[in-house]
Amino acid sequence: MRIAMAVEYDGSGYSGWQLQKDTSNTIQEVVEAAISKVADESVRVTVAGRTDTGVHATSQIIHFDTVAERTERSWVFGTNTNLPKDVVALWSQPVSDQFHARFSAVRRAYRFVIYSRNVRPTFLAGRVTWTHKALELKPMREAASCLIGEHDFSSFRAVGCQANSPIRTITRLEVSQHGPYTYIDIEANAFLYHMVRNIAGVLMKIGSGEAEPEWCSEVLQLKDRTQAGVTAPAAGLYLVGVEYPQEFGLTQSAPSLTVW
Amino acid sequence: MRIAMAVEYDGSGYSGWQLQKDTSNTIQEVVEAAISKVADESVRVTVAGRTDTGVHATSQIIHFDTVAERTERSWVFGTNTNLPKDVVALWSQPVSDQFHARFSAVRRAYRFVIYSRNVRPTFLAGRVTWTHKALELKPMREAASCLIGEHDFSSFRAVGCQANSPIRTITRLEVSQHGPYTYIDIEANAFLYHMVRNIAGVLMKIGSGEAEPEWCSEVLQLKDRTQAGVTAPAAGLYLVGVEYPQEFGLTQSAPSLTVW
Repeated sequence: MRIAMAVEYDGSGYSGWQLQKDTSNTIQEVVEAAISKVADESVRVTVAGRTDTGVHATSQIIHFDTVAERTERSWVFGTNTNLPKDVVALWSQPVSDQFHARFSAVRRAYRFVIYSRNVRPTFLAGRVTWTHKALELKPMREAASCLIGEHDFSSFRAVGCQANSPIRTITRLEVSQHGPYTYIDIEANAFLYHMVRNIAGVLMKIGSGEAEPEWCSEVLQLKDRTQAGVTAPAAGLYLVGVEYPQEFGLTQSAPSLTVW
Repeated sequence: MRIAMAVEYDGSGYSGWQLQKDTSNTIQEVVEAAISKVADESVRVTVAGRTDTGVHATSQIIHFDTVAERTERSWVFGTNTNLPKDVVALWSQPVSDQFHARFSAVRRAYRFVIYSRNVRPTFLAGRVTWTHKALELKPMREAASCLIGEHDFSSFRAVGCQANSPIRTITRLEVSQHGPYTYIDIEANAFLYHMVRNIAGVLMKIGSGEAEPEWCSEVLQLKDRTQAGVTAPAAGLYLVGVEYPQEFGLTQSAPSLTVW
């Protein structure tokens, strides 16, 4: 039986979702260990988006196959009993064998959170990207608008990106502010490596007045990463939602944005 | 010269403000060590409110005496360079020798933050009090109203409380909600030991429907702690402001409520 599960995690204490090279301490490890205890067998999970070191998720989606039969309540609460305090399962549900957490996904939503204050954060240390600069909303919004739609995002792609094509479609890109927080909400069919952090880096420079709004479309048109070169820190990045075709009947939990 | 300073801290990793018995790892220790480095001499600090293990502050006030002469910028940024990531100095200012962080204070403001969700928090683990129960705002507000004003708060006083008198004056007590968060904002001339957590405990029971709103005034009138017995966890408690007489010319920073 195939089970889909939503997982929330504070990535600040982890080397990202997936074991890479010599790193240990990954979210995948603790999630697989917790589910395996509930299933009473070794379970491997497949994830929608392999988040980097220090990146968070309010709604990461995974799937796994198991012969164990448990109620939704048992999967969720049993898994949570075995997870560390910075990772939690939100819900689970049986899905067809056609469902694949990564390949079935048609859209991902990320939120990037910037905290503007003269001194660094405490409660949200590692959970927001801090700047001592005030950010102006209007130029950031103006700049962001040029990125919406289908584009070649080579300029916003990390050097190590392994995607075949640099073409992606951004369906939503909104910048908003609440008190000291600036939020960049971005949805696309898929993302290139470091794409959200590179967009956030460019928008932050524009918001602080170090660059003009036009710079964003100039960067986009260059299609050359070496010309952009501003990657915002991982701390502010949250995977907030993954969308699948209706046919899978998945609980379409709206992006969860209730952290701040 | 006497210096006043505002300090923000995430208390979840500390044994409270002040060294007690055999405990180590206090906020006072790290603050004194950081300021002493900037002053280039051993500095002892006096605090407005000695917060308990796991309790936070968005605006704790301290004072200290030193012969070192530094600009405000040097005190704040120098201290922050030497503080761990969960403690930060917000501002500092020279004050008269008559100023005393604890004894000059005329009012304290606390916020108690409750997070309602079926599964435990991750990002705010240790920084909110979690309940899987939904809390009803109306009965909590109705119950809270009876506590406003001058009363004998013996029923809301911890057994170990060393205050001479159980009489306190609550000048503000408001309950509000935003998404999954319930906030209890409370201001008084001073507080008894565990008073805010005991009030929060009673209000949570009323909000979840386990007790009627009238129970709050019944508890108050009993003037007997052993009859009340619901202390909410420290994790949700924040000292958000301390007020001093105008004559001290202190930067009256409004309570800072921008964490959540």
